[in-house]
Amino acid sequence: MTNYKLTLCYDGSRYKGWQKQGNTENTIQGKTEALLSKLLGQEIEINGCGRTDAGVHAREQVCSFRANTELSDDALLAEIRRYLPEDIGATSLEKAEPRFHARLSCKEKTYLYRLWVSPASFVFDRKFVTKWEEPLNLEAMKQAAALLCGEHDFTAFTSNKHMKKSAVRSLREIRFEQTENELRLYFTGDGFLYNMVRILVGTLLEVGSGKRSPVSIPSLLEGKDREQVGFTAPPQGLILYSIKY
Amino acid sequence: MTNYKLTLCYDGSRYKGWQKQGNTENTIQGKTEALLSKLLGQEIEINGCGRTDAGVHAREQVCSFRANTELSDDALLAEIRRYLPEDIGATSLEKAEPRFHARLSCKEKTYLYRLWVSPASFVFDRKFVTKWEEPLNLEAMKQAAALLCGEHDFTAFTSNKHMKKSAVRSLREIRFEQTENELRLYFTGDGFLYNMVRILVGTLLEVGSGKRSPVSIPSLLEGKDREQVGFTAPPQGLILYSIKY
Repeated sequence: MTNYKLTLCYDGSRYKGWQKQGNTENTIQGKTEALLSKLLGQEIEINGCGRTDAGVHAREQVCSFRANTELSDDALLAEIRRYLPEDIGATSLEKAEPRFHARLSCKEKTYLYRLWVSPASFVFDRKFVTKWEEPLNLEAMKQAAALLCGEHDFTAFTSNKHMKKSAVRSLREIRFEQTENELRLYFTGDGFLYNMVRILVGTLLEVGSGKRSPVSIPSLLEGKDREQVGFTAPPQGLILYSIKY
Repeated sequence: MTNYKLTLCYDGSRYKGWQKQGNTENTIQGKTEALLSKLLGQEIEINGCGRTDAGVHAREQVCSFRANTELSDDALLAEIRRYLPEDIGATSLEKAEPRFHARLSCKEKTYLYRLWVSPASFVFDRKFVTKWEEPLNLEAMKQAAALLCGEHDFTAFTSNKHMKKSAVRSLREIRFEQTENELRLYFTGDGFLYNMVRILVGTLLEVGSGKRSPVSIPSLLEGKDREQVGFTAPPQGLILYSIKY
């Protein structure tokens, strides 16, 4: 069996997220597994690095799978590209070390959240941004972001109510980028809990619009209470941006 | 009556082009006129600068219309933005000189044609590019482009078989831009015939892939025979890019 590393990108608009759910084919994992199984004539199971939610996109998603085939990597990649739906793309395919696992081997992930903060039209980007009309106090947001970074128990910042495993994650950086029409927030860390980036964004937006103070952040982290933190920002502005191994 | 200049942009994917056709509402002109008429409580007729075909997009489309209203320009623009469908955007609205006419006053238009020439995935651009897989001889294409530029009778380069008016147009520039994954062609001229840019692109692609010689261009122009020139490139790669008055 050869272990493969496949890099994908996708427009998640019409999918119920990455992760396969029962028999449904409307997940990115489901679509990709079904295609690989058909192309390779064997049942393929893939592990994705980030389990993106319904409606979330990926500029770079990595998955790993094991297969037996005489096809060259290039030939297999060409077949994958040929049959993937138009909203899922295959960026690269390569053989990986036997112990490589897309999620477990991952050292660092970056998610991008795109906020359209301009009155200008966003016709061409509309599926990949969240519109935000209220003015934002960037300094307050940056102050809150600095307090969120570091190694913390992020229990308050997940929608998963029945987490059995540790909710401690190391959030290494929240980078702010302003473009002509957008505020882009890049979140880099060793891992993210279910809905964590979207709740971080919602909390930062509430800080930016004066609904909560940046200095409240440490007590939110300590309180571990989802009800006390910000709203869950919509999925369409979120993009799994890059992955480091 | 005040004369207005309204600048729009749109993703033309789901429309039958700019120009109103009978009672159909699935044109950009139709949608915009219906909205303006409703907002202003009077029948509004708009003139667009470029009559983009079905599936063609606009980064900048200008239209003019006359109306009587006490709404400020900003208030009217806000209403237009609020009610336009998500694939049509309003960039600006301003009062214009009484004699201003979006099409007749136009001095120069630029269309962009985006060719995706890379094996890389184009998931996020898929609605706005045309994929081209064969290798292209850029030098031959540039030679042909130079021969196409200038003031010519472009009868051979239109799908309109019953043109009564002059087909003489001044094609001022065909600019080539190479990006990481794309070949972008910018066509600037005083006006373009029906399907002209798409047929120019098709002809240039046939030159680039060695199916015809660049030196054949002058005889194609002289021959005035649609059958002798290249195919009509697909609409989705074409974008009305900018307009000068």
